[in-house]
Amino acid sequence: MVKSEMAKPLLDRDIGASTPLSVLSCGDTIGILGSGDFARSLAARLLYSGFRVVVGSRNPMRSAALFPADVEVMSQEEAVKRAQVMFVAIFQEHYSTLSALSDVLCGKTLIDVSNNPEISVNRESNAERLAALFPQCIVVKAFNVVSAWALQSGPKDGNNQVFICSDSPDAKSRVASIGRSMGFIPVDMGALCAAREVEQIPLRLLPLWRTPCALALGLFAFFYLYNFVRFVLHPYLQENRNTLYKLPLELMNVTLPCVAYVLLALVYMPGVLAAIYQLHNGTKYKRFPAWLDKWMLRRKQMGLVSFYLAALHAAYSFCLPMRRSARYQILNDAAKQVRNNVTSVWVEDEVWRMEIYVSLGIMALGILSLLAVSSIPSVANSLNWKEFTFIQSQLGFAALVVVTLHTLTFGWRRAFDGSRYKFYLPPTFTLTLVLPFIIILARVILLLPCINAKLLKIRRGWEKNKCVTFTAPSADCAEGSSNV
Amino acid sequence: MVKSEMAKPLLDRDIGASTPLSVLSCGDTIGILGSGDFARSLAARLLYSGFRVVVGSRNPMRSAALFPADVEVMSQEEAVKRAQVMFVAIFQEHYSTLSALSDVLCGKTLIDVSNNPEISVNRESNAERLAALFPQCIVVKAFNVVSAWALQSGPKDGNNQVFICSDSPDAKSRVASIGRSMGFIPVDMGALCAAREVEQIPLRLLPLWRTPCALALGLFAFFYLYNFVRFVLHPYLQENRNTLYKLPLELMNVTLPCVAYVLLALVYMPGVLAAIYQLHNGTKYKRFPAWLDKWMLRRKQMGLVSFYLAALHAAYSFCLPMRRSARYQILNDAAKQVRNNVTSVWVEDEVWRMEIYVSLGIMALGILSLLAVSSIPSVANSLNWKEFTFIQSQLGFAALVVVTLHTLTFGWRRAFDGSRYKFYLPPTFTLTLVLPFIIILARVILLLPCINAKLLKIRRGWEKNKCVTFTAPSADCAEGSSNV
Amino acid sequence: MVKSEMAKPLLDRDIGASTPLSVLSCGDTIGILGSGDFARSLAARLLYSGFRVVVGSRNPMRSAALFPADVEVMSQEEAVKRAQVMFVAIFQEHYSTLSALSDVLCGKTLIDVSNNPEISVNRESNAERLAALFPQCIVVKAFNVVSAWALQSGPKDGNNQVFICSDSPDAKSRVASIGRSMGFIPVDMGALCAAREVEQIPLRLLPLWRTPCALALGLFAFFYLYNFVRFVLHPYLQENRNTLYKLPLELMNVTLPCVAYVLLALVYMPGVLAAIYQLHNGTKYKRFPAWLDKWMLRRKQMGLVSFYLAALHAAYSFCLPMRRSARYQILNDAAKQVRNNVTSVWVEDEVWRMEIYVSLGIMALGILSLLAVSSIPSVANSLNWKEFTFIQSQLGFAALVVVTLHTLTFGWRRAFDGSRYKFYLPPTFTLTLVLPFIIILARVILLLPCINAKLLKIRRGWEKNKCVTFTAPSADCAEGSSNV
Repeated sequence: MVKSEMAKPLLDRDIGASTPLSVLSCGDTIGILGSGDFARSLAARLLYSGFRVVVGSRNPMRSAALFPADVEVMSQEEAVKRAQVMFVAIFQEHYSTLSALSDVLCGKTLIDVSNNPEISVNRESNAERLAALFPQCIVVKAFNVVSAWALQSGPKDGNNQVFICSDSPDAKSRVASIGRSMGFIPVDMGALCAAREVEQIPLRLLPLWRTPCALALGLFAFFYLYNFVRFVLHPYLQENRNTLYKLPLELMNVTLPCVAYVLLALVYMPGVLAAIYQLHNGTKYKRFPAWLDKWMLRRKQMGLVSFYLAALHAAYSFCLPMRRSARYQILNDAAKQVRNNVTSVWVEDEVWRMEIYVSLGIMALGILSLLAVSSIPSVANSLNWKEFTFIQSQLGFAALVVVTLHTLTFGWRRAFDGSRYKFYLPPTFTLTLVLPFIIILARVILLLPCINAKLLKIRRGWEKNKCVTFTAPSADCAEGSSNV
Repeated sequence: MVKSEMAKPLLDRDIGASTPLSVLSCGDTIGILGSGDFARSLAARLLYSGFRVVVGSRNPMRSAALFPADVEVMSQEEAVKRAQVMFVAIFQEHYSTLSALSDVLCGKTLIDVSNNPEISVNRESNAERLAALFPQCIVVKAFNVVSAWALQSGPKDGNNQVFICSDSPDAKSRVASIGRSMGFIPVDMGALCAAREVEQIPLRLLPLWRTPCALALGLFAFFYLYNFVRFVLHPYLQENRNTLYKLPLELMNVTLPCVAYVLLALVYMPGVLAAIYQLHNGTKYKRFPAWLDKWMLRRKQMGLVSFYLAALHAAYSFCLPMRRSARYQILNDAAKQVRNNVTSVWVEDEVWRMEIYVSLGIMALGILSLLAVSSIPSVANSLNWKEFTFIQSQLGFAALVVVTLHTLTFGWRRAFDGSRYKFYLPPTFTLTLVLPFIIILARVILLLPCINAKLLKIRRGWEKNKCVTFTAPSADCAEGSSNV
Repeated sequence: MVKSEMAKPLLDRDIGASTPLSVLSCGDTIGILGSGDFARSLAARLLYSGFRVVVGSRNPMRSAALFPADVEVMSQEEAVKRAQVMFVAIFQEHYSTLSALSDVLCGKTLIDVSNNPEISVNRESNAERLAALFPQCIVVKAFNVVSAWALQSGPKDGNNQVFICSDSPDAKSRVASIGRSMGFIPVDMGALCAAREVEQIPLRLLPLWRTPCALALGLFAFFYLYNFVRFVLHPYLQENRNTLYKLPLELMNVTLPCVAYVLLALVYMPGVLAAIYQLHNGTKYKRFPAWLDKWMLRRKQMGLVSFYLAALHAAYSFCLPMRRSARYQILNDAAKQVRNNVTSVWVEDEVWRMEIYVSLGIMALGILSLLAVSSIPSVANSLNWKEFTFIQSQLGFAALVVVTLHTLTFGWRRAFDGSRYKFYLPPTFTLTLVLPFIIILARVILLLPCINAKLLKIRRGWEKNKCVTFTAPSADCAEGSSNV
């Protein structure tokens, strides 16, 4: 058996021995068909990972200059003969150009790295097409989620997983091993038909953000319309006052915090529901309903959208006094005050109310910004579980409480002021308070010693009824600092 | 000896050979006792890392569905028989349930991954208890700092270290090797009694942030009280003027920058002290006093708290003109101006002072925000040592100078205005200037060519007196771009 | 041949076998000459990576306490005898002190890890000097880009590359293998003379940021001067009005957005030029001119500078109403309004204009902040190619459009108002609009179906003329989600 250099870490006794080490690529030989951006980056990465690399090109003379010096560029046929495992780094529409190689390819392992430009449902995967074209080869789908750029700069956190599928477990094992050597984390996706799913992965656009963003948009539309009726339509119909100028800025500024507030409440709702569910079933081993699982997995995104809208609300608020409208109103009020011969318009109550709610608003944004920062992947990775939970769960809940106080100070009296109920519609802030109130109340109840103790017991594995019909537990990520 | 498949990277000559590769798990067999979240994530990670995995469960039928298909789930006894190394992934309170396995476990290596829900001092560690229960086994404490979630998503920067301790160096070496294969960085913590410390690690809550936060809180309390006396108590006692409404916002807004400013000065103080210490001792090889070491290690956190408070100060300042109190004051002033028949209240001096100090304030915050961004781990990692030092040390010091100018412009004249000395207390900003002034002065002196040259010489290893009693040097992280 | 323990993952059949495992360091022996910070961190990292480590010190007694217990500290001569590969972790100026070791060093591989304190052009590298001193040794330059601190905390994203060069491919291969074992990604830089370049790498200061920052400074100087002439010089010369107080804040606030806007346009310009270039040449395989390549590689930095200046512009704007000058103007205007007996100064048009452009400005900053956040390395790494392109290319272009609308709303009417042409100079914002307008127009034209289809075809490899003289393609990172 030929000795694998790669597995052998620096044996200093080897110097001067009879089997000299080759150049930097000291491992086995991997082949690449193709000479595009991806092929070149792949060749370099394989080389740095300790493999020998041969490239098969239709025009070896022209291509050789594109590759690192240690890569051997040759005709496609020669390359196939040299390596047992071939990366197929050409566009899917050109697969048929390989048919001339059918004979030499026989028995080889082909790695399909291709992607499609568009998501297409109910279509055969590229990898399956390749397998159909070369039935004597073993086809493995892998590395399609890796970009040429990621290959160049080396695998990184967050994009270091490669998804592998094939009908041959052996071939899958080999390719997984190559991936590991290159610094990637291989993930087994099963048989080759899974390539349909694997090929969709790099075409997905922020899947976890869709629901939170749609929710935010829906809430925005609702609250903007609601505020339009109260602040623009009502004055126009009742007092014939034109306040359309409020549309671009003031209406935005009262709508954004409503959406942010409701979204923040929705971040802490599934935790409460999960606790109730676990208490009701007396076990943590009963799987949550799918919608609750999905909701829990999107809490981070919902929280970040909430923070984003709250920050926009702050920016809009900061701009209020710089507007022409604010200036004109002050000037007119001053003129009016002089006409009415009033010395002081100071209203102590109004002053206090505003000083307090502005201060609370800044504090809430300050706390939320800590949550946002701790959501940056590299910051989150530097925290242990207890720290992450403290920030995301406890500080986050504190933010919800401070926002509630901010909202209450803003409009407490208005809730009981009949003149604020325009067209019988309650003030907007009263509407937004309902959900957060319920959630804060539920959290307080769950913290009562008798209930909390039972919940902790359940989360450490206790079960009300050991004979309960078993269903697989969900990945209960949000709770418990202790392993197991 | 059985050949280890894992160490063998893709040998392409093997295809069709007589020793076929197994399924994706091509390495040695590792056992896991337990079927909770951690056990499941661990099984998957071991599998992806190339090991064969057997799981021992009290209810193999029920548990099998929870694990990846390539994991073999069996009775605890069978699993123990199959593997030499067993992860014990059950809660510490259930360790005694394993006593029935005493015989089969004899001679095996047990990896204790457990954590406690609370920090408890002077207690035996879980790992020591396990070792006491199974004296015929070799117990290794490891992987307790890794969460189920981190196992699922793969080791990442910042949480890729695993702390290992055991009384058996051999077993430690084995477990370290497993950890390396899984992508973690093993750190040897010594004998098994070190498990007490290792079990505390995941229970710690932001240890590096405690002193800076406590310091900030202390300074905040002091300055808030000081400002309360000057801005609220004094007007009330001397002029019977009620300015309590300033408590929630204005007092916050004058207190926050004081704390931020003093904290920023404290970030650059230990560097100055270290330089003086090194100059005084004529060597860099004399260890700094412990308090100075501790202080230097918390500079980043102090700087970030300072930036955070400065940003809050900015937000409070942006809100000043939107308040009712500001509006009422302008209206009343306008009425007064009209009554007094004054055409223009323009004071050129006051205009200039404010335009300059607002502009300087924004610049200081702008510079500090660069420091904050470069403190994000993944940004810091993308900088070389020289770049990081330039931003954190030079830009940061520039920020200190700009903040000092901001403070001086704000209050220069007030420092010499007797009426500002309420109850003989100097204006707050005068107080805050003391420390930064000393530090800026000291840095300027240290930059004098004669002193700077000596310091550089010392930092490149020169020693005043080679015969000085030797003590271990501290990790002098802040200085010197050159290695060695 | 001695069995390498490191390559051998946990062989559970070994327990009790006749070849006992050594302590945690189960690999081959690596030597280190030196006992400074770097030597100590290196020793620990090598140990954790599974090597045996011997340290050669001039004073082994004194140094032993500084190293981990598993590291053997001995005289330099003994250490050299024990290991085949020696790290030379001493300052370059002390290389000559090793000359006594000449004989024992004969035939060994020396790894030069040294750095210089300053960039120096046309100088021999440290590694070449070492090679000249010890002609019987094989010298490899490596690990100089790694700081002692990075060794301590383990290799991380962004600083996990080590650049290796040597005249001996074998030695390079060995050192690359050590680097891989330590978790670094070795990059082959060629022969030993490349050490000159390798030694410069850690001395470079933000090379990619230089041009964008210089550009921003140049544009700032130009626009500040232009605005000075229009807002300060013109009123003074024409109306003898002193508006010098505008220098620190108002002039900053009108200059910053001009620079930010032009920079943002320059981010999207090279993409347009590249498309035109590819359409003109009918192939993507013709290399872009060097200046275009350089420009494309700095787009991220230019965009971030643009966002930074836009954020400063926002902060300056938020501060406008809090200034004394704003207060005095309102008071004087109120007094004037009363004197003139005007009831309302409301100008509906002006109100609308400002509400809209403030709102658009906040939206633009909001979008740009998403781009900035997605530029944080660990966030970028968590996005797939399609997501990254969507945010950086599509959202970014949307920001450019919104900023254009913000600018237009701000000053549309002024462009056609003769009185705004001071000294025949057009209003500043009119000037800034030129470039963005051209770019937006060009992007719209490129999106026309006939042109877009051809461009897509070219980017998937189609060539107008297959016989065109071939030149190496540039790394076209910005385009195309599909691999290959």
